[in-house]
Amino acid sequence: MKATVYYAAGDVRVETVPDPKIVEPTDAVVRVTHACICGSDLWFYRGEAKAWKAGWRTGHEWMGIVEEVGSAVKTVKKGDRVLAPFAYSDGTCEFCEKNVQTSCINGDYWGGAEHDGGQGEAVRAPQADGTLVKIPESAANDENLLAALLPLTDVLGTGHHAAISAGVKRGMTVAVIGDGAVGLCAILAAKRLGAERIIAFGRHQARLDIAKLFGATDFVKERDKEGIAKALEMTKGGPEAVLECVGNESSMAMASGMARPGGTIGYVGVPYGSNKGLNLSRMFGQNIALRGGVAPVRAYIPDLMADVLAGKLDASPVFDKSVGLDGVPEGYTAMDDRTAIKVLVKP
Amino acid sequence: MKATVYYAAGDVRVETVPDPKIVEPTDAVVRVTHACICGSDLWFYRGEAKAWKAGWRTGHEWMGIVEEVGSAVKTVKKGDRVLAPFAYSDGTCEFCEKNVQTSCINGDYWGGAEHDGGQGEAVRAPQADGTLVKIPESAANDENLLAALLPLTDVLGTGHHAAISAGVKRGMTVAVIGDGAVGLCAILAAKRLGAERIIAFGRHQARLDIAKLFGATDFVKERDKEGIAKALEMTKGGPEAVLECVGNESSMAMASGMARPGGTIGYVGVPYGSNKGLNLSRMFGQNIALRGGVAPVRAYIPDLMADVLAGKLDASPVFDKSVGLDGVPEGYTAMDDRTAIKVLVKP
Repeated sequence: MKATVYYAAGDVRVETVPDPKIVEPTDAVVRVTHACICGSDLWFYRGEAKAWKAGWRTGHEWMGIVEEVGSAVKTVKKGDRVLAPFAYSDGTCEFCEKNVQTSCINGDYWGGAEHDGGQGEAVRAPQADGTLVKIPESAANDENLLAALLPLTDVLGTGHHAAISAGVKRGMTVAVIGDGAVGLCAILAAKRLGAERIIAFGRHQARLDIAKLFGATDFVKERDKEGIAKALEMTKGGPEAVLECVGNESSMAMASGMARPGGTIGYVGVPYGSNKGLNLSRMFGQNIALRGGVAPVRAYIPDLMADVLAGKLDASPVFDKSVGLDGVPEGYTAMDDRTAIKVLVKP
Repeated sequence: MKATVYYAAGDVRVETVPDPKIVEPTDAVVRVTHACICGSDLWFYRGEAKAWKAGWRTGHEWMGIVEEVGSAVKTVKKGDRVLAPFAYSDGTCEFCEKNVQTSCINGDYWGGAEHDGGQGEAVRAPQADGTLVKIPESAANDENLLAALLPLTDVLGTGHHAAISAGVKRGMTVAVIGDGAVGLCAILAAKRLGAERIIAFGRHQARLDIAKLFGATDFVKERDKEGIAKALEMTKGGPEAVLECVGNESSMAMASGMARPGGTIGYVGVPYGSNKGLNLSRMFGQNIALRGGVAPVRAYIPDLMADVLAGKLDASPVFDKSVGLDGVPEGYTAMDDRTAIKVLVKP
C-alpha cells in the first residue's frame, strides 16, 4: 500500500510500504477513508522532535472501513465504518478504566517506528475492541457528517480535554491560547460546556472568524506580556480557566501569567519548551493549578459523537484544505507556513 | 516591644521595635503567646530569598491574646485567645469567598517591610474579623492543647492543603516528599483523609519516628532517581497522589517522576528552583496534574480545629525545641543545621 514516511525535517514522502495484516487476534485492519495532518505533526516536520528518525510513519488522526478482524475481536466487523482515537488502548486496564486511555499498559500511538500511520491507505489497528468506535450506518454516506466526526479522532477531543481539565463550567470566563485547530476546538468545547465569556488570542482573520463561529466573545491581538496585561484588565484579575493549546514557552508563560487566582490552566499543547515559560512562582502564590496532558480522546468520543450525530456539534470548519494521499507533503507545507489551519486527507 | 529582625543571611536579631497600635478600625493588637520558626523562614535565612532586606520583621506563625481592637472589629474582643493564619485576609472578597484567602485583595503576609512578625511580643493584625479565629475558653489554659492548635497557623494547614490539592481520598496510596514539619503534617493530613498507604521519604530517624506516629506505612531512604525507581516499583506504577513539601529542584523532580498516570501532585513547598525539576513531558504524557500553592490555611482552620479540640488531631510532636524570644536566633541555627525539626517560640 501507499503511506506517508518521514525522512527529515521538512521532508515527508508518500511511498509504497508493506500491506498491513492481522498479527494478533485482537487486531483489525482498517482501510483509511479520511485522515488529517495535525499541528503536533509539525514538531517533527520542523525538526523539534529530536527522537524522530527517517523511515517512521506519520499520521495519527484517521477513520475508515474495517477490512478484516482478528479472531478475538468482538465489537467491530468487516465493513463497519469506524473512528480511531489517536492512540490505541485495550479498554480494560486500570488506566483505561480511569479514562486515561493514553496511559494504557497495552497501548501506543499510531505511526512512528512500529505502527502504521493514518496518512496512508490502511492501518493495522491493535486492540481493536478497546480502540475503534463504530460510526452508525446512518452517517456512513453523509460526507458532511463524516467531516464533522473526523475531529473526534484528536483535535475536538483534545480541545475538550483542555476545557474539562481546566474545569470549565456554565457561566465561566475562559481564555484560549492558540489559534490552531486545537485552540479553535477548545473554544467550541468551552462554549458547549456553557462558558459565558471566551477570550480568543490571535491576529489571523480566517482563524478569528472560525473562533467567532465557535463561540469566542472577545478577541485579543496582543501577545506575551501585553497579552497577559490585556487579559488581566479585561477580566479584572484574570480568566478562571485558561486553555493552553500550543505547548511552547510563550503560550505557557501567557497561560500561567493570566489565570485568575484559584483558577486552572488546562494544557494540551505538546510541550516543546513550555517548561521554561511556566511561571511557577505566580502559580504557587495564587494557587493556580495545571491539569491536562495528552488527551484521552477515546474517553470523550461517545459523548461528543452523540452531539455530532444530533447536529449540535461540528468542528469541521477547521478543515480549510483537502488533499489526496499524494498531496500530503503539500499539506504539511501549507500547515507549516500557516496558509492552512488543518488539512483533511482522503487517501 | 521586642521582635525579631532580619539583617542578612544567617543573621537575625531580637531588638526593640515600635509598639504596635491600632491604625485602621479593622485592626486588632494581639500579644503573642506562642509562635514558631518555619522551614520557609530558612529561604531568607540561607540567603535564597533575594528580595529580603535588612530591617524586615520575621515570623508568620503565631497565636496570642487580643489586647485592643479597632472600632469596626466585631468577632473578637480584648482578652480573647486567638489563632492567626500565616496571612491576613478580609474574609469577604471574591477570593476569600472561594477559599483562596491567600489571594485576598486586602490581604498580605505577616512580617517583611510593612507588618509586624509573629516572632515578637505583639502584632498589629489588620483585617482582624477576616483573619483571627477565636480559641474556645476551655482550651485556654491547656498548654498541650495550645501546642496542638499552634500548627494550624501554618504547617498542619499547609500539609492538609497538599493532601486536599492532590485529591487524597480513602484507600489511596500517597507519597510524601519532604521530612520537615510540613511533610510530617502532610502525612498526618493524608492519614486523616483515609489514605491507606503512605510512603515517607527520609533518612533521619527522629523524623521517621514522627512520620510513623503520624501514619506513614512505608519508608524509603533513597532519593532522586533511585527514590523514583523505588516508589514506582513499590506501587507498581507510582502513587496516585504525591505531596511535594520541599520546593526545590530535587523534590519536584521526584514528585513529577513518580506520580501515577492520571494522578496528582499536591505541592506546597515554596518554589526555589523547583521549576527546573518539573518533569513536564512525563506529566503531559501521563496526565499528571499539579495543584496547590501557598496554603489558604484560614479556610481549613475551623475544620481542623474541631478535630484538635476533640483530641483527634495533634501535630505538636513536630515541635522538638522550645525557646524564649531571645532564643530565636539559636532556633534558626538549629533548624538550619537540621538539629531541630521545628522550633516553638514563647515570647
